[in-house]
Amino acid sequence: MLGLMQDQPLLISMLLEFAERHHHDGEIVSRRVEGDIHRYTYRDLARRSRQLAQALDQAGLQQGDRVASLAWNGYRHLELYFGVAGSGRVMHTLNPRLSPEQMAWIVNHAEDQALCFDMSFLPLIQAIHAKCPTVRHWIALCEADKLPADSGIPGLQSYEAWIGARSGDYVWPRFDENSAAGLCYTSGTTGNPKGALYSHRSTVLHAYGGALPDAMGLSARDSMMPVVPMFHVNAWGLPYAAALTGCKVVFPGPAMDGKSIYELMESEEVTMAAGVPTIWQMLLGHVQGNGLKFSTLKRTVIGGSACPPAMIDTFREEFGVDVLHAWGMTETSPLGTVGTLKNKHLKLSFEQQLAIRVKQGRAIFGVDMRIVGDDGQEQPWDGKTFGDLQVRGPWIMDTYFKGECPLVTDAAGHRWFPTGDVATIDSDGYMHITDRSKDVIKSGGEWISSIDIENIAMAHPAVAMAACVGMPHPKWDERPIVAVVKKPGAEVTREELLKFYEGKGLAKWQIPDDVVFVEAIPLGATGKMLKTRLREQLKDYKLPDL
Amino acid sequence: MLGLMQDQPLLISMLLEFAERHHHDGEIVSRRVEGDIHRYTYRDLARRSRQLAQALDQAGLQQGDRVASLAWNGYRHLELYFGVAGSGRVMHTLNPRLSPEQMAWIVNHAEDQALCFDMSFLPLIQAIHAKCPTVRHWIALCEADKLPADSGIPGLQSYEAWIGARSGDYVWPRFDENSAAGLCYTSGTTGNPKGALYSHRSTVLHAYGGALPDAMGLSARDSMMPVVPMFHVNAWGLPYAAALTGCKVVFPGPAMDGKSIYELMESEEVTMAAGVPTIWQMLLGHVQGNGLKFSTLKRTVIGGSACPPAMIDTFREEFGVDVLHAWGMTETSPLGTVGTLKNKHLKLSFEQQLAIRVKQGRAIFGVDMRIVGDDGQEQPWDGKTFGDLQVRGPWIMDTYFKGECPLVTDAAGHRWFPTGDVATIDSDGYMHITDRSKDVIKSGGEWISSIDIENIAMAHPAVAMAACVGMPHPKWDERPIVAVVKKPGAEVTREELLKFYEGKGLAKWQIPDDVVFVEAIPLGATGKMLKTRLREQLKDYKLPDL
Repeated sequence: MLGLMQDQPLLISMLLEFAERHHHDGEIVSRRVEGDIHRYTYRDLARRSRQLAQALDQAGLQQGDRVASLAWNGYRHLELYFGVAGSGRVMHTLNPRLSPEQMAWIVNHAEDQALCFDMSFLPLIQAIHAKCPTVRHWIALCEADKLPADSGIPGLQSYEAWIGARSGDYVWPRFDENSAAGLCYTSGTTGNPKGALYSHRSTVLHAYGGALPDAMGLSARDSMMPVVPMFHVNAWGLPYAAALTGCKVVFPGPAMDGKSIYELMESEEVTMAAGVPTIWQMLLGHVQGNGLKFSTLKRTVIGGSACPPAMIDTFREEFGVDVLHAWGMTETSPLGTVGTLKNKHLKLSFEQQLAIRVKQGRAIFGVDMRIVGDDGQEQPWDGKTFGDLQVRGPWIMDTYFKGECPLVTDAAGHRWFPTGDVATIDSDGYMHITDRSKDVIKSGGEWISSIDIENIAMAHPAVAMAACVGMPHPKWDERPIVAVVKKPGAEVTREELLKFYEGKGLAKWQIPDDVVFVEAIPLGATGKMLKTRLREQLKDYKLPDL
Repeated sequence: MLGLMQDQPLLISMLLEFAERHHHDGEIVSRRVEGDIHRYTYRDLARRSRQLAQALDQAGLQQGDRVASLAWNGYRHLELYFGVAGSGRVMHTLNPRLSPEQMAWIVNHAEDQALCFDMSFLPLIQAIHAKCPTVRHWIALCEADKLPADSGIPGLQSYEAWIGARSGDYVWPRFDENSAAGLCYTSGTTGNPKGALYSHRSTVLHAYGGALPDAMGLSARDSMMPVVPMFHVNAWGLPYAAALTGCKVVFPGPAMDGKSIYELMESEEVTMAAGVPTIWQMLLGHVQGNGLKFSTLKRTVIGGSACPPAMIDTFREEFGVDVLHAWGMTETSPLGTVGTLKNKHLKLSFEQQLAIRVKQGRAIFGVDMRIVGDDGQEQPWDGKTFGDLQVRGPWIMDTYFKGECPLVTDAAGHRWFPTGDVATIDSDGYMHITDRSKDVIKSGGEWISSIDIENIAMAHPAVAMAACVGMPHPKWDERPIVAVVKKPGAEVTREELLKFYEGKGLAKWQIPDDVVFVEAIPLGATGKMLKTRLREQLKDYKLPDL
């Protein structure tokens, strides 16, 4: 027997219509690529998104066609989010940090029909446009009079002229909520990028989950700054959660230095901001260096990589700002876990709370997770046992766009996405990433965290960078060694560094067998260590006991 | 093109599995019908709900079969919520305040297969059981040794014996998320009761919406007390929102007096509670009368009927407790609007904020609303213009169970549920109920609120009760008159009362044409004024100018 409730699909246009009707004068403030501050409201956003939808109709784009963006965080990018997806096309955000070759590969794989870009990326567009035959419309996100006389891009149009000619008199279409809405490619360290294709349903459910008090706790009382880029997994879904709540939105544009971020936070009374640790480090540096304070900021959500405990401490102790760790990835929309506390933790001391806050957090309703051993069996939630982290839920990916399905099925028939992370989960459900699966060292049936070994080496005053890898061993399968780059002018010996590991919380068998001094650790475009390349460099290396 | 995200239906069992896995030791505390305090965890709840599902399987109940409850707020009732719906049956909550005749009518209309009741309702069950032939299983929510030797109910079983024989080794079934999950009947003042049939999808989406910071703001840091009965529109969805967040739950059982509620709030460190104004009035009376204070309570959600501004004031000024008005009805699951403030209101004075807080609130994402005039056209959101309130969304009813579809379709094809309330909506989206549609007085093309007229009369020291109705008028269609019951021993004349209306914010044409003194106003079972019966009593009445 079916329930007799209204049949209403969960569509991204529903978010925009809600914001327009119920929060029409909610502010959206953007620092533009041009440098000035632009401000308008959800009502303006809705009207211009409808104009964009009409322009896409006029351009002959079909339902499901991909429209790419190459843009900073700002109101025009937000219009693309709603206008492209709301009208039934697929919003494909490109990461400007990729090389021109990678970008052209992705545009061709996605078969993008249109590409909209901030003028600061014109050189990149000039480098790729000839290699992207599927793109029929090149749109510069600017006024018509800002278009260069000879851009070198045939048929280049200004966004303002393109949408400005439309009436805005448009009704959002209704279609299956499982239709594709957004496309993001992962920037893997090996192999070609792979695309995660989000649906309207997954996006709206993710917005509900992300706004919950146990996640980012977003409301109409917030002034929210997404510092995380909109080309990075949809700025963690914040643009959608913003429309769901009608909160004020403050976009930093391309000015990501500490001073610019701080001044915008203060002038726009930002209460909540989200981004990666490096940005917060720059912001803290500016604030501390100039004896400033945060007048309105109440909490920050930090993801992308682990936040140093000292930073959580400083934000909270010195500035009264709550820091929430979050974890996710392109394939998880991205929100999987957030480090909000539970009722039982509220009476703990700050130090005891910090031990929970440094973990990646607990699952948001909608996400389930587990850790499994080499045999695929679920591991205990004891905060100690390592396992491969797997997740499932309505906003977790099933199959890569034009690609394979990586899911594994358990005995109960549940299908899990293997994240490639190795983690522990404690009895309260807080997950702690200890390694990437491909980097964890498996020694004598036990797993050793390469990250733990690297962190200890990095704490030595003479060490600039450290990378831990497993080396083949006939008896133990693998044994860890650590490759170290010394700071300029600093000295430390192999023996001193191995001795430095004692008393740091590692069991004897977890301490690396050897230290190898190197000139440099190979890094990828986004600053991640390329351990496969390091292992290639060390292919002739032999462990001391062999 | 469809998105490639995991296909996972939104099922009520997903809420319970989440709570069990991620909040296994979260507490559920109940004051039992027996008078003692019972406490256990989400893990216990999940195990016993699975045992219940097995008992239902064993009893031969099919997918979609209805299981009725007649019970107070407590852990066994919560197990029914999850075990009945999670296993694919339909949870049908009966309101014990109905007469035996009404109750038997509803049980027969719903074709309930089983009926589970608290022992305090045994006399009611004895009165109806012979009239309910569809009920094959009568289950008393108690231990086997608490069953009376001769209950008069053939085959009566104890719940504990019934589920205790099962292993709890059960996997929740997976089915269409649009399947029926819950059934509640409206207690209309005229005609037979009508059933709203909720689906798993509508229930889970409603739980997301209800937990948002702009609604009830529920998190794992809360200790939440649903004072609103679980037989009253699923306690506003709080049992589901609780599992979604893993918050502590504190059930008051049948002890609804101020002292019992207060003591349980204090001992269980309740942070958030929800209920109707009369309960809060009793609670405030106890707290003020004994010079007490609230140690942990931070906010209350008040619905069911309008909360007097003075009560909002007292809670906030005297006790630092935030009062949120909410509006909804059986057909809306029930949450439609909540009176949370917006960013722009935070700098207003307390008096200015109070003017917003006394309204019924603004829409939660998932709900859209509008007000329409007699011609069906949408009315402006100016906070002044009256209109019939209509709502739509994925947790708003489409068609009554075995009944008619009351929806109306607008020009854009949107289908709206007519609430039967008359309201204004202001430019910020805050809705204010001014009347029931059938009670509003339509005079000379303008609408007059019967509630406004009653409230002014009630403010007169000599008036015990007042009911305003419209009387036919050849020129104005209708004109308002007010029927008044005087307080014992108090005196007031028609002329004095009409004069009392001057300077109270009404336009001259909104002041009633006449005052009729009566012995009593006819009331329904739940205390609502029966204006149809009052109009019958006044059928020979003539307006003064006719």
